[in-house]
Amino acid sequence: MKIDHLGIAVNSIDIARGFYETLGLRIEREETIEHEQVRTAMIPVGESRIELLEPTTENSAVGRFLNKRGEGLHHVALHVDDIAETLEALKSNGVRLVSEKIQVGAGGHLYFFVHPSSAGGMLLEICQDREQIQD
Amino acid sequence: MKIDHLGIAVNSIDIARGFYETLGLRIEREETIEHEQVRTAMIPVGESRIELLEPTTENSAVGRFLNKRGEGLHHVALHVDDIAETLEALKSNGVRLVSEKIQVGAGGHLYFFVHPSSAGGMLLEICQDREQIQD
Repeated sequence: MKIDHLGIAVNSIDIARGFYETLGLRIEREETIEHEQVRTAMIPVGESRIELLEPTTENSAVGRFLNKRGEGLHHVALHVDDIAETLEALKSNGVRLVSEKIQVGAGGHLYFFVHPSSAGGMLLEICQDREQIQD
Repeated sequence: MKIDHLGIAVNSIDIARGFYETLGLRIEREETIEHEQVRTAMIPVGESRIELLEPTTENSAVGRFLNKRGEGLHHVALHVDDIAETLEALKSNGVRLVSEKIQVGAGGHLYFFVHPSSAGGMLLEICQDREQIQD
């Protein structure tokens, strides 16, 4: 298991990037995820990455988060080796999930979210790269 | 550089640990840091760790955080190779710091905090293991 990424909600990637560049980090990839109405910038940090999330509309999930709470950590993602097994273990222990189904993300990775009420107040994503299941 | 740890403020380590154990993670070390009035539990995750922070008094920094915001992410710590160089780079770029001096933590590690207003709304710790400077 590892920390896959930290999702940080920001008003502007162009403004936020300067701080990370001062730290010596670099944005590796930027993309717009249309169906989530969010622009993302990936900043590798060791085996993990920081994902800056800038809403493309105020009414998106990240846009509403910013309106309510301002900039800051939106979610933490943990990478697991067997997402189906993890989902079953959490369900059978009564952990509250945002959705009980594994979803497929833009790059083909698999994910689901644990509700903050079960994860110490953090929105927690559990994810797995698609490649690993194809092995 | 790597994500050193995520500091999560919780009301009770004994209650919070169950969720992480269900994920297959284990608490490696628990200790009480008297001068910060906090009990901590370290959970290794890949090259990083999750640190559960439980206040020993309501009037501690973590206790006040919990009273104000409830459980959740308290800070993110990035590990750097040369903390003095990082501090100078941030200062010379006008980044707002919580304190402009490098401090020495319980285990001898070095650290300082970047103010959330300069780090996308997150309280960001920059740290370095003591061993690395002694090399």
